[in-house]
Amino acid sequence: MPELTPLSQLGEFGLIGRLQRDITLGQPSTVLGIGDDAAILAPPAGQEVVVSTDLLVEGVHFDLTFAPLKHLGYKAIAVNVSDVAAMYATPTQVVVGISVPSRFSVEAIEELYAGMRLACEAYKVDLVGGDTTSSRAGLVISVTALGLVAAGQAVRRSGGKPTDILCVSGDLGGAYLGLQVLEREKQAYLADPDTQPELDAYNYVVQRQLKPEARLDVVHELRELGVHPTSMIDISDGLASEVRHLCAASGTGARVFSEYLPVANPTLEAAAEFNLDPLTAALNGGEDYELLFTIPVTEHAKIKNHPDITVIGHLTDKSDGVNLITKGGQAVPLRAQGWEHF
Amino acid sequence: MPELTPLSQLGEFGLIGRLQRDITLGQPSTVLGIGDDAAILAPPAGQEVVVSTDLLVEGVHFDLTFAPLKHLGYKAIAVNVSDVAAMYATPTQVVVGISVPSRFSVEAIEELYAGMRLACEAYKVDLVGGDTTSSRAGLVISVTALGLVAAGQAVRRSGGKPTDILCVSGDLGGAYLGLQVLEREKQAYLADPDTQPELDAYNYVVQRQLKPEARLDVVHELRELGVHPTSMIDISDGLASEVRHLCAASGTGARVFSEYLPVANPTLEAAAEFNLDPLTAALNGGEDYELLFTIPVTEHAKIKNHPDITVIGHLTDKSDGVNLITKGGQAVPLRAQGWEHF
Repeated sequence: MPELTPLSQLGEFGLIGRLQRDITLGQPSTVLGIGDDAAILAPPAGQEVVVSTDLLVEGVHFDLTFAPLKHLGYKAIAVNVSDVAAMYATPTQVVVGISVPSRFSVEAIEELYAGMRLACEAYKVDLVGGDTTSSRAGLVISVTALGLVAAGQAVRRSGGKPTDILCVSGDLGGAYLGLQVLEREKQAYLADPDTQPELDAYNYVVQRQLKPEARLDVVHELRELGVHPTSMIDISDGLASEVRHLCAASGTGARVFSEYLPVANPTLEAAAEFNLDPLTAALNGGEDYELLFTIPVTEHAKIKNHPDITVIGHLTDKSDGVNLITKGGQAVPLRAQGWEHF
Repeated sequence: MPELTPLSQLGEFGLIGRLQRDITLGQPSTVLGIGDDAAILAPPAGQEVVVSTDLLVEGVHFDLTFAPLKHLGYKAIAVNVSDVAAMYATPTQVVVGISVPSRFSVEAIEELYAGMRLACEAYKVDLVGGDTTSSRAGLVISVTALGLVAAGQAVRRSGGKPTDILCVSGDLGGAYLGLQVLEREKQAYLADPDTQPELDAYNYVVQRQLKPEARLDVVHELRELGVHPTSMIDISDGLASEVRHLCAASGTGARVFSEYLPVANPTLEAAAEFNLDPLTAALNGGEDYELLFTIPVTEHAKIKNHPDITVIGHLTDKSDGVNLITKGGQAVPLRAQGWEHF
């Protein structure tokens, strides 16, 4: 096993210098990156800037006993890029703050940053600023993502109209089942540290949990199809919660058809094994980071054959409420059981 | 004593909703604030955007036994505004992430946000986004500040030229002495909880520690005087450390004259009482959040009578090194003993 370097040996400035080394900048709007009091960006004329921030906190959002640091770094960037994508914007820059317990080695922090750099390359965003400090307790990662969108073209949660079609990208519930698998393996490991984790069969759902992707590809494809959603939100807390957010902001109700909800086969299989209702995982599991959006019915033809977009229902008048339509055709109020961390 | 509300009673969305209530937006460049996946900003044509991020971590950057939450909220905004000011930019928006231990009450978090709102009003910045999550350990505050500056006019650390005059705003060492006073009172309190803190005599230095101000006023005055610094940095880690950063970025040396360093009388008095060298406090104390900047000698007349700007030396060729010139005229290498948190 290679020797690990204690953080104290490098010090704060040393660490910052070492992490800075491997950063490359590619966005035309980046004028100045890390190394000054602030980064400098030059948004092109006619573009607006979107800004979103998220905290990832050890023991709340992730468990280092099963989240590899490289995956965690990747996820920290991806979930912020997802917020930018949900505005119909193109992510361009991120700034990152990390608060690191002194038990961490320099190599561990480099793994974390390596994952962030991978995500920055994948989404073509520049890491332009940061703050690295120690922590008396757990690891905390703060990411703020910036993006560009043509002036007036950002898609808010509030633009949905009754009769608009409700769509989701990808499939749902996988991340939640991945978490169940990882929690079970953790318990098995704690009971017997010699046990080998058996994750191969659950590769899909585990990846959904550990390394989610922002659906920037879907945003690009919607642009190519000439589809401008009337409202959009990313699914971080679970579909039910996000449908309710979108309806509240748009002043509408909604009908979500349970039989249309896209759930991948590996998610169905894992749900069966864990004796969990896949519908519950899809509605309330969270962390799928898919996009939920609405389009006018007149645009339906443009997306109906898209393999990665599923129509799951439609908006209604507010007075109809937000309902799940069961296979039997019964309407039941859609309840949010998102992630309440307190 | 009024009844306190546990965080669990309100929940994450409830808390966010409650905090959101009191936010007002005033910046013309703010298109959309809190409440969507991201905020939307419209930088005017010909302006560049600067972005800076900072983490404040309980037990590392602040001690809740003596830092009132309202002051802490104010400081979290001020130190980020200071970074924007150090680019010669005007701060316009902030996004805030807080990770809150569940032992906190709703009222405590409202105090923290009240301090942030006060600072936002004082510096005329809009709070446009945030993330509120729980914490398994201490309080963590992450602030990202954005600002605007005319294209090409941002002042970097790297623009200093040999012979440029080196200036600081305000006075130095006060925040460090304030910390000494607060630490002493904390020990007295721990020894005897009935003891009353005696802070009146130390009002100035305690304020410097608990409620520092970003020197945006100095930036505005430099603009009015027609002075465009060649390089600038804010003093968060102590003058010595910042002079070294500025020289390293500019590729120069420097001569800093110890007898010119501005130290306020209350700081001198506190230093005498604590048997500390005020020069050490000024050079290495940190957290003063004053501005260190360079101007060409030809601009000296414009600032020489400014009550809040002091010339403390000048840049030199890199080969001369970064030196402190003592009262006796001796040159000694200026060593940085900034805040290394690991």
